[in-house]
Amino acid sequence: MQVGGVDGLERNGKEAKMGNGRTAKRCELLLRLLALALTLVAAILVGVDKQSAIVPIELVASLPPLNVPVSAKWHYLSAFVYLMVTNIIACSYAALSMLLTFTSTGENIILGSMILVLDTLMVALLFSGTGAATAIGLIGYHGNSHLRWGKVCYVFGKFCGQVAASIVVSVIGAVAFILLVVFSALRLHEKSK
Amino acid sequence: MQVGGVDGLERNGKEAKMGNGRTAKRCELLLRLLALALTLVAAILVGVDKQSAIVPIELVASLPPLNVPVSAKWHYLSAFVYLMVTNIIACSYAALSMLLTFTSTGENIILGSMILVLDTLMVALLFSGTGAATAIGLIGYHGNSHLRWGKVCYVFGKFCGQVAASIVVSVIGAVAFILLVVFSALRLHEKSK
Repeated sequence: MQVGGVDGLERNGKEAKMGNGRTAKRCELLLRLLALALTLVAAILVGVDKQSAIVPIELVASLPPLNVPVSAKWHYLSAFVYLMVTNIIACSYAALSMLLTFTSTGENIILGSMILVLDTLMVALLFSGTGAATAIGLIGYHGNSHLRWGKVCYVFGKFCGQVAASIVVSVIGAVAFILLVVFSALRLHEKSK
Repeated sequence: MQVGGVDGLERNGKEAKMGNGRTAKRCELLLRLLALALTLVAAILVGVDKQSAIVPIELVASLPPLNVPVSAKWHYLSAFVYLMVTNIIACSYAALSMLLTFTSTGENIILGSMILVLDTLMVALLFSGTGAATAIGLIGYHGNSHLRWGKVCYVFGKFCGQVAASIVVSVIGAVAFILLVVFSALRLHEKSK
């Protein structure tokens, strides 16, 4: 009877563990879907970003200013290209890792470790991209008198706003990857129990 | 006799596990020491970076150029300040985590998880700092004709070289933290066995 009781407890424990495993997998898939959506939005936001404007330039003080058409495009600055590329890589990886997490069955420690390493690399990649774009964006917004780099965001307000939105969305995507690193570590820990 | 044999095997297994644990702890401490040293060097490299130069400026074509003294200091650009701050934070954390790893005894899963989260945050912090400094450094080196941001590194070669060295050292420090994330995850996995 006692042995049966212990067996029952063990079975219940195993069922509870399987239930927890399914919930954890669902949570992880949701987080990966979130990371995929956020990095996709961030890449699109910066990839379609362009603005044209007319800037009055005064050549001679006695004459009226000359209206010069100017335009800002995302590929004019390598930091914004890098921001887009990092988000595309992270988005593609999120899709691939979703597929791997979805199809993997059982306790695959090697796959778990590989995903943990790649998740960490995505954190590094996304934060380097947002860091680069933010640094350039700040100079565009405030200028730098020491280097005589003039501010440009007062002319291209919509363009700068869209880059800022892309940076914010990309940072939230990177935070999702940080949560996935912690999650992957805890799942590795669970699997080995 | 058989029971004694099994006991002996178990004891050997436990001793081997303890030996592995000590080696793993030593490796982790070495990696943390490396991360500490690298981020310290990166912070110092950018923190002591300054250069003065004489730039000939031609005011009137018929007169000889005017020699103007100019100087470059690390705190003129917020990206370089950020690079230094991120390295100081990572260096301080490396010291603190070394102390925690060194003094912790036994299987502390909560401390292990906390260190894993903080290691991941250091990866994010260091990569955002190096990303920001690299973006500004590239504009300083090549300039940007679209924004009329002139290149400056041809005047301040030593200054730019020192920032580049700091970025490289900081990236290696960040890679040490990536290895620590993987290491922390594997140690969590080992502890829970």
